[in-house]
Amino acid sequence: MSDFNSLPLQATGKPPYLLTPGPITTTDTVKAAMLRDWGSWDGDFRQMTRQLCDQLLDVANAKESHVCVPVQGSGTFAVEATLGTLVPKEGKVLILMNGAYGKRLVQTLDYLGRDYVTLDKGDYLPPMPDEVESILRADAEITHVAVIHCETSSGILNPVPEIAEVVVRLGRRLIIDSMSAFGAIPVDAQRLPFDALISSANKCFEGVPGFGFSLIRRSALEQSKGNAHSLSLDLYEQWAYLEKTGQWRFTPPTHVVAAFLQAMKEHAEEGGVAGRLARYSRNQLRLVAGMKALGFRTLLNEKWLSPIIVTFLSPQHDNFDFNTFYDRIKAKGFVIYPGKLTVVDSFRLGCIGQLYDEQIDQVLVAIKAVLAEMQIESGHAELPEENAVTAA
Amino acid sequence: MSDFNSLPLQATGKPPYLLTPGPITTTDTVKAAMLRDWGSWDGDFRQMTRQLCDQLLDVANAKESHVCVPVQGSGTFAVEATLGTLVPKEGKVLILMNGAYGKRLVQTLDYLGRDYVTLDKGDYLPPMPDEVESILRADAEITHVAVIHCETSSGILNPVPEIAEVVVRLGRRLIIDSMSAFGAIPVDAQRLPFDALISSANKCFEGVPGFGFSLIRRSALEQSKGNAHSLSLDLYEQWAYLEKTGQWRFTPPTHVVAAFLQAMKEHAEEGGVAGRLARYSRNQLRLVAGMKALGFRTLLNEKWLSPIIVTFLSPQHDNFDFNTFYDRIKAKGFVIYPGKLTVVDSFRLGCIGQLYDEQIDQVLVAIKAVLAEMQIESGHAELPEENAVTAA
Repeated sequence: MSDFNSLPLQATGKPPYLLTPGPITTTDTVKAAMLRDWGSWDGDFRQMTRQLCDQLLDVANAKESHVCVPVQGSGTFAVEATLGTLVPKEGKVLILMNGAYGKRLVQTLDYLGRDYVTLDKGDYLPPMPDEVESILRADAEITHVAVIHCETSSGILNPVPEIAEVVVRLGRRLIIDSMSAFGAIPVDAQRLPFDALISSANKCFEGVPGFGFSLIRRSALEQSKGNAHSLSLDLYEQWAYLEKTGQWRFTPPTHVVAAFLQAMKEHAEEGGVAGRLARYSRNQLRLVAGMKALGFRTLLNEKWLSPIIVTFLSPQHDNFDFNTFYDRIKAKGFVIYPGKLTVVDSFRLGCIGQLYDEQIDQVLVAIKAVLAEMQIESGHAELPEENAVTAA
Repeated sequence: MSDFNSLPLQATGKPPYLLTPGPITTTDTVKAAMLRDWGSWDGDFRQMTRQLCDQLLDVANAKESHVCVPVQGSGTFAVEATLGTLVPKEGKVLILMNGAYGKRLVQTLDYLGRDYVTLDKGDYLPPMPDEVESILRADAEITHVAVIHCETSSGILNPVPEIAEVVVRLGRRLIIDSMSAFGAIPVDAQRLPFDALISSANKCFEGVPGFGFSLIRRSALEQSKGNAHSLSLDLYEQWAYLEKTGQWRFTPPTHVVAAFLQAMKEHAEEGGVAGRLARYSRNQLRLVAGMKALGFRTLLNEKWLSPIIVTFLSPQHDNFDFNTFYDRIKAKGFVIYPGKLTVVDSFRLGCIGQLYDEQIDQVLVAIKAVLAEMQIESGHAELPEENAVTAA
């Protein structure tokens, strides 16, 4: 059996950079924060948990109105936990879908046995506020609206503030899956009226994977006792136990939490959300410009591109094969991400994590070289249909 | 706000040793395996996951009959996931309870809405095979029996092989919560006929916390599609996706997995289960002998002491206060664990993790010094009632 430690490093002599939507490349100092063991019952770790929650609430300006409930597992665990805890058994959810993560919300509610309706915009069209308004006006039973902040399957940044305005005006409650956005896209809980906003450790805060968290309106959480379908994913009980003891109910990923605190420190040092947004935006502009110069096209119109991840159309060329393309780019030091669309061949490049001008330039050099190796003259590709997003 | 990195280290100049049931003290090399980022979609990480599962099946001699399904979160997540996946909606579980972890199984089935009966032996008596036999003979509706391998609330090692014999003879299915035992207590799936055995990364394999796993009889898992109550905790779907893609369904704790592979390597180098059992047993004997010399008494009769964790009765002395005792021992470099019993005051000392003769001797020196500081002449304590376990 081969030992993973003996796997060859890439040509750069270092592990490849991750141009993916998370896990992402973290700093050495974030990883070094894991070089210590912590007792989860001990006061030191309880203080770390308190610090984690306080700082996350601060980032969203949510301390007055919301509480932070961390939960073990991936971001999907945190989303399921939030839906299961906040949506009562007689509730009904409007799910705004435009990609894989919207579909996952549907799947989750199927497991939970909660009633829902969907607005399905397909692969890459944004749900629009007037559409949400029509649906809510026509169906008084809808109690909650769930939306994906940045839908990483296409990379689109959905118009969440505009949707929130409609949802609250019509007296419903908003749940935002902000997995790949929070930390880089500004969120102010006093202006964006959500009942819950969910994210995870290994996205824009640039921690390592192992837990997620939900910022939940205190008044909504207080009413949610007994809703949850799962012991492990009951965020009411997780919160109540945290309040009482300062501890997570079940063993937390202590090292991952320590890494996240270091990541939060570095996030603040970079200028918080504004600083991170500036760097990711710069990465995205540089990446898209460079890819266009190589002949690639983005799936989305520029208006809808997020600074998180960008979907590029695969070259319509006989020599193009994604796995070969992937392996050759990896051999040059970069891990890219496959597409997740149903209608067109595509791949994705993430802009988040420890990526700066230097890495963006290097990945462009690598992609250019790989196109030459594969004898693909140009990355130029046409959408099979008119890019419908331009009409939005 | 204080920075956790500035928290004072202990008098030893190093973080305290954890004499707890997990998270435990891990080696520096295990922690150093986390100093790299991995893409969860990438082939390197898929190979790591395959290696993880293969090696765990090997440890239990289960490759012919079982599959390994890892799941994000703490051990409790893995237990809930296993129960939710394997016990059909019309199933009925006999829960063998003798402490907090047995109670947690009850709580879990309450959330799942699955039928169950219990054999509740209180705080520290073992469930006996003849009792299990009577209950199973009287109730044909019971489909599954769930038992805790080592119940860390008292530290008792339950008679699982003898119980398994009864369960299988009477045609029922066995689920073993082996959280704090697997890796140090021998398990051979060809002799111990379980449908599922559950454990986690941060116990006797000495990894860091962040995921659990379940070794599940392949034929039982194949029949379990559609049982699960939770998207995130559906082990049938987790397994099917792993089989198909080599990937976890949702973002895995990549760094924790890398640490676990290193931990498995060190487990093998120590002589596998036998080697680890030898060290933990030596720790336990040395610890109990030393504590007895200081006047302490164990809750359990020696016959039932596990090499995992030992419960000691708190001194019946006016000067004894657990929090003071804890803080003073911590200041000398050791984190101990509170008791979890309802009938007697107690505390616990773990024998697992990176503990050797030297650390055991040091903790005994520390406890002796703390007793002197607290002006407690002797740790001697009496059980409020005759130690009932001796009758078992």
